[in-house]
Amino acid sequence: MKIVAADTGGALLDDAYQPVGLIATVAVLVRKPYKTAEENIVKFSDPFSYDLSGRQAIRDEVLLAIELAKKARPDVIHLDSTLGGIELRKLDEPTVDALPISDRGKEVWKELSKELQPLAKRFWEETGVEILAIGKDSVPVRIAEIYAGIYSAKWALEYARENGPVKVGLPRYMRVEIGAGWIKGESLDPREGGLYGEIQVETDDVKWELYPNPVARRFMVLEVRPKI
Amino acid sequence: MKIVAADTGGALLDDAYQPVGLIATVAVLVRKPYKTAEENIVKFSDPFSYDLSGRQAIRDEVLLAIELAKKARPDVIHLDSTLGGIELRKLDEPTVDALPISDRGKEVWKELSKELQPLAKRFWEETGVEILAIGKDSVPVRIAEIYAGIYSAKWALEYARENGPVKVGLPRYMRVEIGAGWIKGESLDPREGGLYGEIQVETDDVKWELYPNPVARRFMVLEVRPKI
Amino acid sequence: MKIVAADTGGALLDDAYQPVGLIATVAVLVRKPYKTAEENIVKFSDPFSYDLSGRQAIRDEVLLAIELAKKARPDVIHLDSTLGGIELRKLDEPTVDALPISDRGKEVWKELSKELQPLAKRFWEETGVEILAIGKDSVPVRIAEIYAGIYSAKWALEYARENGPVKVGLPRYMRVEIGAGWIKGESLDPREGGLYGEIQVETDDVKWELYPNPVARRFMVLEVRPKI
Repeated sequence: MKIVAADTGGALLDDAYQPVGLIATVAVLVRKPYKTAEENIVKFSDPFSYDLSGRQAIRDEVLLAIELAKKARPDVIHLDSTLGGIELRKLDEPTVDALPISDRGKEVWKELSKELQPLAKRFWEETGVEILAIGKDSVPVRIAEIYAGIYSAKWALEYARENGPVKVGLPRYMRVEIGAGWIKGESLDPREGGLYGEIQVETDDVKWELYPNPVARRFMVLEVRPKI
Repeated sequence: MKIVAADTGGALLDDAYQPVGLIATVAVLVRKPYKTAEENIVKFSDPFSYDLSGRQAIRDEVLLAIELAKKARPDVIHLDSTLGGIELRKLDEPTVDALPISDRGKEVWKELSKELQPLAKRFWEETGVEILAIGKDSVPVRIAEIYAGIYSAKWALEYARENGPVKVGLPRYMRVEIGAGWIKGESLDPREGGLYGEIQVETDDVKWELYPNPVARRFMVLEVRPKI
Repeated sequence: MKIVAADTGGALLDDAYQPVGLIATVAVLVRKPYKTAEENIVKFSDPFSYDLSGRQAIRDEVLLAIELAKKARPDVIHLDSTLGGIELRKLDEPTVDALPISDRGKEVWKELSKELQPLAKRFWEETGVEILAIGKDSVPVRIAEIYAGIYSAKWALEYARENGPVKVGLPRYMRVEIGAGWIKGESLDPREGGLYGEIQVETDDVKWELYPNPVARRFMVLEVRPKI
């Protein structure tokens, strides 16, 4: 199976280790053995002015997934929204109302679906590819999340070079390692069977350390600062 | 403590990695240090015609656990049903109604208890051994689950030799390794403290690979095909 | 950030591996990189006569955390009560009523807050340090839990020397190792990013083994007996 998935993650943290805004949305193409991405594309956000309601993330993810899917021609697209695997093109108001989610979630999805449902319908008519709101059961979504962490590390490197020390909160239970010219990321949950990713990137002129976020158990903090 | 436990697991998967039916029910005898089985017996099902409601699994597990217990004389039997550790011999209709489980679960258990409750009562009267619906808190139940995965791998080897390529979904977060004459299985969750199992089996004439199930995070797929 | 946290854990087990009572309350001082404690103090309980309602544990934790905080001057204190991070000094009856917790929990907290709320208020007025009911999101609370496991092992060593074999249930998914003059403890959950602790202690004259608690998955048992 050839799957495109998208997810958003990595957060700029303040000095109390609280999230200010999210950093990266990534779409990935995943194929057997489903452990890493064959292709990936990224869209950076401005974490200093970010809508944390979840609306911006989902919208970015759908658009980026479709962008990659147009090129990669997958069998299916996975979104990081746990709506029981429903097809996005079928998500009209009555269907949203029937979902077993919170009232707050319904409100968000009713608004979102106005724009995204026709988009998904058109994409399906043109290509036959479904966009599924499968969420946390999807391995490709988790791989996209790991890449979002890797690209957040890249963002932190570039930010630190220009602006000084910065702290980024990685997505849940993953770590990154920064070497000469590369950033690797991998899941810290061995139950996931070895999910990872890697990108090539300029890594000079900075120092980094990785440690647990004291106020968010199972989340790691990447702190980057310029090498004097 | 000497514990007999039973569980059912391992699923034949279709090409979309969805379960078609379950493969193996295993009963195990577990003793200190409670990491693997001293004895095990297996009953294979036909995954191509399997009742996925859960009824068949529970029935098979009770019967197989009693079969092993008659020989092994444990202190107690653990079943993979999370009903707060209640004794199966006490599970009459009013008791089932009072359980904090779904209406669907109550229906299943009312039907099941008609057959299984008298069986458990008779076994207890003859031997003094209780059958407890302890479920997910039981380590021996998890060991039985790991053996169900190992025997599902054995089933896949034999199936592949005769019928060609086959995909099996292992029980949650476990992996198997196939060597010359043996199949090992172990938990991928280090929090469980190192649970594992091993059986001796003919392993010639097949190739195998293990990878994450893309649509079921934390579950691995074992794919087996004949060596040409 | 400089954080003091407290937790209670480690349980004397009976022969059926059921808890009889809790053993150790520990307060720790934790600083970047938030993986272990810089300082720790312990208060042992008598597990043979222990109030398992949770009241005793919370009270001991608040008092011990304040004791360590008076010396260590942290920025904040973390308690192992998951009440959404609310400040203990604000926990009056109407606030407890509004918490999204069980009626049982509300009852316990209404009684507890009569004593603890004024204490927290006074401590805050004197030092500016808040006591937060942050619970399971806090890494320092988890580190305190690991130290509670380590000190429970110490208790078991001393108990075994004088009274013979004893079984202790460690806090969730952690293990201990006993060497010549030291006890180390560490989390078995790699998602936590490597949390651990160590104390110096007399370790002669005993033998020990560690294995999974058969009736409490993901919890380990430490069994200690005198070397003849």
